[in-house]
Amino acid sequence: MTVKRIAVIGAGPSGLAVLRAFGAARKAGKDVPEIVCFEKQSDPGGMWNYTWRTGLDEYGEPVHASMYRFLWSNGPKEGLEFSDYTFEEHFGRPIPSYPPRSVLLDYIVGRIKRDNLQGDMRFNTPVRDVAWDAQADNFLVTAEDLPSGHVYAERFDNVIVASGHFSTPNVPVFSGFDLFPGRILHAHDFRDANEFAGKDILLVGSSYSAEDIASQCYKYGAKSIVFSYRSKPLGFKWPDNFEEHPLLLKVDGNIAHFQDGSTRKVDAIVLCTGYKHHFPFLPDSLRLKTNNRLYPLDLYKGVCWVDNPKMFYLGMQDQYYTFNMFDAQAWFVRDVIMGRLELPSGADMTADTHAWRAREEALEDAYQEIDFQTEYVRDLMQYTDYPPFDLDKVAQLFKEWKHDKVEGIMTFRDRSYRSVLTGTMAPPHHTPWLDALDDSLEAFLTPLEEVRAKAVG
Amino acid sequence: MTVKRIAVIGAGPSGLAVLRAFGAARKAGKDVPEIVCFEKQSDPGGMWNYTWRTGLDEYGEPVHASMYRFLWSNGPKEGLEFSDYTFEEHFGRPIPSYPPRSVLLDYIVGRIKRDNLQGDMRFNTPVRDVAWDAQADNFLVTAEDLPSGHVYAERFDNVIVASGHFSTPNVPVFSGFDLFPGRILHAHDFRDANEFAGKDILLVGSSYSAEDIASQCYKYGAKSIVFSYRSKPLGFKWPDNFEEHPLLLKVDGNIAHFQDGSTRKVDAIVLCTGYKHHFPFLPDSLRLKTNNRLYPLDLYKGVCWVDNPKMFYLGMQDQYYTFNMFDAQAWFVRDVIMGRLELPSGADMTADTHAWRAREEALEDAYQEIDFQTEYVRDLMQYTDYPPFDLDKVAQLFKEWKHDKVEGIMTFRDRSYRSVLTGTMAPPHHTPWLDALDDSLEAFLTPLEEVRAKAVG
Repeated sequence: MTVKRIAVIGAGPSGLAVLRAFGAARKAGKDVPEIVCFEKQSDPGGMWNYTWRTGLDEYGEPVHASMYRFLWSNGPKEGLEFSDYTFEEHFGRPIPSYPPRSVLLDYIVGRIKRDNLQGDMRFNTPVRDVAWDAQADNFLVTAEDLPSGHVYAERFDNVIVASGHFSTPNVPVFSGFDLFPGRILHAHDFRDANEFAGKDILLVGSSYSAEDIASQCYKYGAKSIVFSYRSKPLGFKWPDNFEEHPLLLKVDGNIAHFQDGSTRKVDAIVLCTGYKHHFPFLPDSLRLKTNNRLYPLDLYKGVCWVDNPKMFYLGMQDQYYTFNMFDAQAWFVRDVIMGRLELPSGADMTADTHAWRAREEALEDAYQEIDFQTEYVRDLMQYTDYPPFDLDKVAQLFKEWKHDKVEGIMTFRDRSYRSVLTGTMAPPHHTPWLDALDDSLEAFLTPLEEVRAKAVG
Repeated sequence: MTVKRIAVIGAGPSGLAVLRAFGAARKAGKDVPEIVCFEKQSDPGGMWNYTWRTGLDEYGEPVHASMYRFLWSNGPKEGLEFSDYTFEEHFGRPIPSYPPRSVLLDYIVGRIKRDNLQGDMRFNTPVRDVAWDAQADNFLVTAEDLPSGHVYAERFDNVIVASGHFSTPNVPVFSGFDLFPGRILHAHDFRDANEFAGKDILLVGSSYSAEDIASQCYKYGAKSIVFSYRSKPLGFKWPDNFEEHPLLLKVDGNIAHFQDGSTRKVDAIVLCTGYKHHFPFLPDSLRLKTNNRLYPLDLYKGVCWVDNPKMFYLGMQDQYYTFNMFDAQAWFVRDVIMGRLELPSGADMTADTHAWRAREEALEDAYQEIDFQTEYVRDLMQYTDYPPFDLDKVAQLFKEWKHDKVEGIMTFRDRSYRSVLTGTMAPPHHTPWLDALDDSLEAFLTPLEEVRAKAVG
C-alpha cells in the first residue's frame, strides 16, 4: 500500500495544528500519511510573525502579515490554550493572561519544534494552483519556490487549506480619498503606532481592529481618535480624546464629514474594514466563498468541503475560539483522512451545515455567539481523541472577558484568569498594559521581583 | 483563412501603442488580427493612472500603480511625443514642456479613444497563466474576471507582454527596520507628499525615484531630506535642508547610521530602491529575467522572445525614450505578426542581441547611453512605416535636459523645448514648478493671461 500524501497550505496556527494532530497519531503508533506543508512566509507561525514590510514582500508577493508592533492578545490566553500543551508546560511556569505577540508565537511554534514535527515544511513557497484530477483521484498542486523562481507540481491525495482569512484586506473607497493630504491605510498595513503620535486619527470601522489599533495609538501618544461606525458605536468607556461618529460620508481635504453632519479634521485614516476570504490559488470549484461569520456554508463540520470531501479548510470561521478550535478541527480532519471517521452522504452533510447555519442565524448577542461556537467545538471533539477540556468554563471565561472590556477597555488586559487545564490562576503582569511599552518576550517574562528590584535599584 | 488572435497583456503606454499600430494598419486597408487586451486595472493608461490605494486593491490584487500625486513629467514632453499624434494635435494648441501626470494620461489615452481603437479591452482582468501549446501552435491564456471571480482560458496565436516593469518594488531590508518607530515605505507606495510635511525624511537610493520624491517632499514642506547612496551621490545643487550620505548601515530607533559613521534622526524612510521585472503569470520558459538596463537579453530587437518568437515583450528596457520608443517597438511587432517582416534564425537573433549587449556594456556615461538608445530606436524604425522623426534632435534634447537638471534641479521644469515634429517652441508654464501646487489638468491648461488676470483681479 502506498502512503497517502497530504498537502497543507499554510504553516500558521491552523496548519501547525494539522502537523500536531498527525504527530500525535504517529506517537500513538499509527501509520500516518506523508505531509507537505507549503508556506509562503519564511517562518512558521502565520499571522503571528511580525514584519515591517507592507504591500509586496521581497519576492513581489503580497505580504501575508497584518500583524503590528505592540500587539498584545486581545483575549485571555486561557481561552485559547492547547489542551495537549499548556502554557505552563511551554514556559515552565505560570504567565500572565494577556501576552504580547512574541510570546504567543513562541508558544504555538514551540509546540511543533519541541517534538520535531516540522517534517517537510517548504518555506517561501506559495501554492499557485490546486487542480482536482477525477481520473487519478487526486490533486495536482502547483507551487513556486520563490528564491529560485522555480514552479513545480506534485500530486496529493488530500489538500488542507489553512491559509487564514486575515491577510487580504477589504478596502472600501470614500469620496475625496484621492485628494486626502495624508496617509490612508488599511489595518492590514498598520505597523507601528509611533507613526501616529501627536496626530488626529480617523478609524473607519467598529470591530476588533478598530478597537485595538485605537487603543494602541492612544497608548503611544496619538492626539485624538475618531471612530466612524456603520451600524453601531463600539460604545466602550473611551478616554477623553476619543469620539465615535456615524459612517464617514466623504473627506474634503483633511476634513472628514460624517453622516450625521458632523466634521473633524484628521491627519491619517485607518480603514479597519475587515478582511476577505481570498484564495487566488484555488479554482472556482474548490474555492470557499463566504464572508466572515461563525458558520460558513459548504463545509461539513466546518472543515470538509462538501463537494469534494478530500479537500479541507481549517480556521475559516469568525472566531471566539482560536488555537484550541483549530486543534479540534485538525484532529477531526486527521481522523477523516486516516479513515477513522466515515463521512455521511453529500446530502446529509449539506443538511447538517444548514442546520448549524439556521442556529447561527438565530443568534442574538455575543453571549449566544460564544455558546454557539462552544457547541461547535464540543461537537467536533466528541469524534476524536483531542484531550478533552472544560468547554463550559472557557465559554464562561469569554463572557467574563466581554464584561471586563466593558468595565475598562484600557485596563482589561491587567486581569488574570484561571487555566481550565492546569487550574492555576495566572499571575498579574509586572506592569499595567497601558504602561507596558516594551512588548518583547524578554520584557514580558521578566519576573515581577526583578522588575521591582530594578525600579527600586 | 481564420483571423489570427493576439493577446496583449496590459493597456499602459506599451499596450496602447500596439492598439495604435494595428489601428494604423487597418486604416491603411490591411486585414488585421483580432486583438484582446487584458488589463488588470479598471482604466487604460497603465502607470499613468493615479490611485490612493497602496498594497492590495479592492480585489486583493497587488496595486499596479507606483504613481503619486503631484507627479510632473521629469523629462520634457518633446522627448516622448508620438510622431503620429502630436501634443498640439491633441490639445489644439502648444502646451508647456513639463506636464503633470493627468495631462500625459489624457494624451496617451486620447490617441486611442479619438480613433476608437479600444476594441476588445478587458478591464479588471489580470492574466493568470500563459502556456505554449506546441501541438496546437498557439498559446493558452488564462485570465480572471475580478468582479465575478470567473477564471477562463482562451487560445491566441501571439502574446505581447506589455505589463510594465515599475509595479513590483525591490525592497531591501536594513538592520533595525523591525524596530523603527515610524513609517518605512517603498517609492511604489508613496502617494502624497503632504504626509511628510514638517518631517525629516530619509530616502534610500539615488536614481529618478529618490530625486523626484525628494523634490516633491521639499515642495510640499518636508523639514529635511537625507539621501543615502550606494555608489555615488545624485550630486545636484540641492536646497540647504538636503544632505547626501553613503549607504545606510542600520537604524537604531529613529537614528539612521551611514557607512561613513555619520548619523541622522529621521521620521520616515522611503526606499527608492527600484523595481523588479516581475511576471508571475508566465512559466519559466517564457519569462524574461533581467535587471533594469538598456538592453535585456533574450529579446531580438528588444521585443521578440528569441526562444519562441510568437511571444513578444514591449517596453522592458531602461528608458530615456518612452512613448515614442514603445511605438517603434509596437510597429515592429505588428509587422512581424502580420508577416511583413521575416525574423532571422534563432542563432542569428541571439547573435544580434549579443552584439547590442556588447555595445551597451561599453557605454561610459549618460550621453553615450542616450546615443545608444537613439540608435536602438533608429534601428527599429527603419523596418516599419512608423512616421519618421528627427532622432538626433531628440537625443540632443535629452542631453540638454540632463544639463538643465544640473543647472537647477528645482527649476529645470520651468524650461521650454521645441517640438521636433511641429517645430513649435513650447510656451512657458504660467507658474514656476516649485510654486505650482495644483497638478490638475485644468490648472495646467489654464491660459497664462487668465492666470495673470486672476492674480491681478
